[in-house]
Amino acid sequence: MKDFDYQIELEVRDHECDIQGIVNNSVYQNYLEHCRHKFLNEIGLSFAEMHNQGIDAVVIRAEIDYKSPLRPGDSFIVQLKMAKQGRLRIIFRQEILRKADQKLMISARITTVLTRNGKPISPESLEEAFKRAGINMEVD
Amino acid sequence: MKDFDYQIELEVRDHECDIQGIVNNSVYQNYLEHCRHKFLNEIGLSFAEMHNQGIDAVVIRAEIDYKSPLRPGDSFIVQLKMAKQGRLRIIFRQEILRKADQKLMISARITTVLTRNGKPISPESLEEAFKRAGINMEVD
Amino acid sequence: MKDFDYQIELEVRDHECDIQGIVNNSVYQNYLEHCRHKFLNEIGLSFAEMHNQGIDAVVIRAEIDYKSPLRPGDSFIVQLKMAKQGRLRIIFRQEILRKADQKLMISARITTVLTRNGKPISPESLEEAFKRAGINMEVD
Amino acid sequence: MKDFDYQIELEVRDHECDIQGIVNNSVYQNYLEHCRHKFLNEIGLSFAEMHNQGIDAVVIRAEIDYKSPLRPGDSFIVQLKMAKQGRLRIIFRQEILRKADQKLMISARITTVLTRNGKPISPESLEEAFKRAGINMEVD
Repeated sequence: MKDFDYQIELEVRDHECDIQGIVNNSVYQNYLEHCRHKFLNEIGLSFAEMHNQGIDAVVIRAEIDYKSPLRPGDSFIVQLKMAKQGRLRIIFRQEILRKADQKLMISARITTVLTRNGKPISPESLEEAFKRAGINMEVD
Repeated sequence: MKDFDYQIELEVRDHECDIQGIVNNSVYQNYLEHCRHKFLNEIGLSFAEMHNQGIDAVVIRAEIDYKSPLRPGDSFIVQLKMAKQGRLRIIFRQEILRKADQKLMISARITTVLTRNGKPISPESLEEAFKRAGINMEVD
Repeated sequence: MKDFDYQIELEVRDHECDIQGIVNNSVYQNYLEHCRHKFLNEIGLSFAEMHNQGIDAVVIRAEIDYKSPLRPGDSFIVQLKMAKQGRLRIIFRQEILRKADQKLMISARITTVLTRNGKPISPESLEEAFKRAGINMEVD
Repeated sequence: MKDFDYQIELEVRDHECDIQGIVNNSVYQNYLEHCRHKFLNEIGLSFAEMHNQGIDAVVIRAEIDYKSPLRPGDSFIVQLKMAKQGRLRIIFRQEILRKADQKLMISARITTVLTRNGKPISPESLEEAFKRAGINMEVD
């Protein structure tokens, strides 16, 4: 990912590792989600408050390439870049890099839609927030 | 999925649901993994014992389509069908169906490789176990 | 636990085990909670629906004795017995037994209160449901 | 806790919250464990490496008072103070404070023993590491 819209730094918690001594596959989705939600906070939005107003950001497809596993003690970077796809979809391209050597551990593509009371809605309301934050969504 | 090699029945635990009142996206990977590991048990293999012998089944790519969310109280079926891809990859096509109405909630394609001491190995040893169990892997 | 009000049977999922190859300490709270919530369902109550009506069952103290660890492949029984303490508290005495040999793995005492809109309320409404289900709460 | 031996700062991840919109009870054990393991790292020990050498730090009892719940967006402090109990036990008194107002959210007392190949051993080897780090364990 040459450039990105947002990144956070986290570190592995031992309980996130499984019998193989590496971070369990499902846990990376927690990392990726936390990065997306922190990004929403950064631009003035809140996943929890949006839900209370009937607006939900919904993942409809996740594609995750597991390049190399994180281990106990590892610090890592989670980053994202957004793009639009068609009228309704927002794509998050996300990467997880091991901090010590910037090695790419996870490459992911998360497809989301916004819903109001369960019905898909245009992401225009969020786009305004994105623009105020200086982010121009590319077309995927 | 017209036919499948293995299926289990589970039910949602309330703590698996998040603020939106639905099962969190990452949790479905737990369900899918549990189905794969139970399937290994069924044909006489154990994920934990294999690991102790230096053999690990490793997920290298997960593609998950979130069709509809599971909710508190839901029982559901997790099923899988295996196929080979090339010399080294085993593909698990997996589905999660809501039990009450057989509605498709999750459709997934999990790509795995076997490793011995971290190096990819041919899945032939497992294929023997599969054949003994009457499973003929199709080519993906 | 000589007698109990409710029990369920579950089995360990491999991802619930940590680097030590045993179920992580925090996961037993998931098992214990799932047993309590299933028990509520059994007597006609739902944790999720209660929450939607502003009524929450809240854990205020957990005491958990870890006797012996569950491992991959283990099936186990989770059981509970309820008692009242004072006007507001409901105590759940809970145990987890390994199914194969009925060995006691976990002994717990979970203290809960009911709240409506965040304020503690008398558990009388639930007591009615308990009595209809033939359960007489002892005084702890 | 007037004084403490170690503290870390974390923040709530949305997926850690359940239907009630608050951090699930089991998750605080993850926070408490992560603080203990980071503390081990701080004084030159590693939970994962100790396990590989046959030495495990084992929780035998957890007592957790849930004073007030953490919510999405909250940052918080996890801190610990160690004490000895008898020849074999190490007690961790732990607290979780909400960062914004230093409100006490969780108060816990975690009783642990060290084992080598499953047998309890004296914590003297760790005591040396503690002393090097300037920590004098009080008697509980």
